[in-house]
Amino acid sequence: MNQTESRVLVTGARGFIGRHCLPRLRARGFDVHAVSAGPVDELGAGWHQCDLLDPVASERLVRKIRPTHLLHLAWIAEPGVFWQSPLNRKWLAASVALIESFYEAGGRRVVAAGSCAEYAASASPHVEDTTPTVPDTLYGHAKAATYFALRAAAHGRGGWAWMRLFFPYGPGEPAARFIPAAINALIRGQKLDCTSGTQVRDFIHVRDVAEACAVLLDTDLNGIFNVGSGNACTLREVGALIAAEVGAEGLLRFNAREAPAHDRPYVVADMSKMLNQLGWKPQLALSEGIRITVAAKRRELGLLSA
Amino acid sequence: MNQTESRVLVTGARGFIGRHCLPRLRARGFDVHAVSAGPVDELGAGWHQCDLLDPVASERLVRKIRPTHLLHLAWIAEPGVFWQSPLNRKWLAASVALIESFYEAGGRRVVAAGSCAEYAASASPHVEDTTPTVPDTLYGHAKAATYFALRAAAHGRGGWAWMRLFFPYGPGEPAARFIPAAINALIRGQKLDCTSGTQVRDFIHVRDVAEACAVLLDTDLNGIFNVGSGNACTLREVGALIAAEVGAEGLLRFNAREAPAHDRPYVVADMSKMLNQLGWKPQLALSEGIRITVAAKRRELGLLSA
Repeated sequence: MNQTESRVLVTGARGFIGRHCLPRLRARGFDVHAVSAGPVDELGAGWHQCDLLDPVASERLVRKIRPTHLLHLAWIAEPGVFWQSPLNRKWLAASVALIESFYEAGGRRVVAAGSCAEYAASASPHVEDTTPTVPDTLYGHAKAATYFALRAAAHGRGGWAWMRLFFPYGPGEPAARFIPAAINALIRGQKLDCTSGTQVRDFIHVRDVAEACAVLLDTDLNGIFNVGSGNACTLREVGALIAAEVGAEGLLRFNAREAPAHDRPYVVADMSKMLNQLGWKPQLALSEGIRITVAAKRRELGLLSA
Repeated sequence: MNQTESRVLVTGARGFIGRHCLPRLRARGFDVHAVSAGPVDELGAGWHQCDLLDPVASERLVRKIRPTHLLHLAWIAEPGVFWQSPLNRKWLAASVALIESFYEAGGRRVVAAGSCAEYAASASPHVEDTTPTVPDTLYGHAKAATYFALRAAAHGRGGWAWMRLFFPYGPGEPAARFIPAAINALIRGQKLDCTSGTQVRDFIHVRDVAEACAVLLDTDLNGIFNVGSGNACTLREVGALIAAEVGAEGLLRFNAREAPAHDRPYVVADMSKMLNQLGWKPQLALSEGIRITVAAKRRELGLLSA
C-alpha cells in the first residue's frame, strides 16, 4: 500500500503502547501526528498538544490535521483505579466525539483500543465474534459502548478495526502492575505481597502490541481483533520466570492479599482471527519478553550498561 | 412504593409510545414532566419544550426539573429511514449526554428504549442475557452503544432498565408501517403492495408497551428486559387478521416488492424474564389489538361513531 497520502493521528501517543507505535508507523510510510495532553515543545515535529476530553479542542485538532487514519489509544489507564473510575464516562463521550469528528472531516479508517474486559467471563479462550460482549466493570461497559459507537460512526463512511487488548507488558508499563512491580521488587531484593497468583492471563509484549496496531491500520479489513499472545499463563508462572531471570527466589508472597472483586480467573485470547485474516502473530515468547523487560529495568536503575 | 417524591421526565412524550405512557405514570402517582421538541403551550402543565439534540439545553432542563426518574423514549423513528439514518449518531450522543446529566443531578433510575435490532439474528426467541448483542444496522449499533453507555453511567449511581422493544402497534402508529398501512388500505378498499410476508415478528399492542414502561419505572430491578408479546406471527397472518376484521379480502399483494436488505426472517421475544422477575405479561391478544386498532382508524376516518 502506498502510504504517501496517509496521515495518521495517534492519541495516547506518549502512553505505554503509543510510544512503541510511532516508529513502526513512520517505518510504514505514515505521516505521523501524535497527540499529548501535556507540553509537546521538546518532542519535535508531528506532536500536538490537545486535551481530548474537550470535544471542541479535539474537533479543531482533527480539522487542522485532516488525518486519513486515526489510531485511538488514549483512555484513563491508572492501574487499579481505571476499572471503576468515573473518568471512563468522560473518555467514552470524548471518544465518540473524536471518532465522529474524524469521519466527518473525511477520515478513512479508525483503529481503536478496546479491551478483553468487554467479553463475558469465560473459562476458555475468548473469540472475537463468538464470546458474548458482557462486561462487568465500568471500564468494560465504557469500552463496549465505544465499540458500538464506532460501528455506528463507521456506517457508510469508512473502515474500522477494534482491538481487544489482553495484557500488554514490557518496558514502560505502569509500575503498579504485576510484572513491573515484581521485577522492581526482585531486582531490589524486596518482598512483594501478591494475590493468589492462580489467575490465568494472556500476556503480550508491548512491541508486539505496537506491531499489531500498525498492521491493523495498514489493512482494509474491518472487524474486532484480539491482540494477545494466545498463550495461557498464571501469575505464579510469570512470577517464576521473573525470579529466574533476576536470580531472586522466594520474594513473591502469593496469597498475601485479596484480589479485587472483579478479578477474573481466566482471561486468554483466541488469536486465530489475526493469524487467519492477516497472517499476523506475536513474535516475542514470554520468557524472551521478560528477559528484555528485566534488562531494561536494570539499565534504568544503572545496574547494567546500555 | 410511595411515589409522592417521584418525578419522572419522559422524553419522546408526544410519540407513539410516549403518549400512552403519560396517563399510566400519573395513575401510579408520578409527577410527570413531558418533553417535546415542538411547541407545548397548548398541552398544559408538566410539558416542556426542549431540543434534546442540544446537550446544553437538555442539561438545563434536567437541572430545572431535577427528576428522580427518567423514561427515555425519544429517538429518530421515521419508518424505513431510521434503520440507516445518520441521525442515529446524534441520538446516541444526545442520549449519553442526557443520561449523564440525569444521574449527575441526583436522578435515581433510568428506563430507556432499546430495540430487538440489537440482538444477533436468530431463528429462535431472543433471550435478554443469552442471545448475543450483534446488530447489523446503524440503528442497532447506536442503540447497543447507548445501552452500554447507560450501564457505564449507572455504575455506583442508580438504577436502570433497558427495554428491548419488539414490534409495537396500535392507534397512532406511524402510517408507513405494515399494520397501519394495511388497515388504511383495506378500509379504503385499496390494494397494498407488500414484501413476501413470510417474516415472523412479535407484535405487541402499544398499551401493553406503555404498561411495561410504567412497571419498569416503578421497580428497583435492574436489567435488560424484552418488551414483546412472546408470540410469533407472520406478516401474512397479521394481514389475514386485518382483512377479516375489516371485511376486505384479497387486497394485500404479497411478494409485490422486495424487503430491505437488513430485513430478518425471524424476530420474536422470549418473555420469561418479565414474567418471572416482575410477574408481568401483555394483556391484549393480537386479534383483540387489531380489532381496537381498526376501530380507532374507522373513528378517525369518520366511518364509526366514537
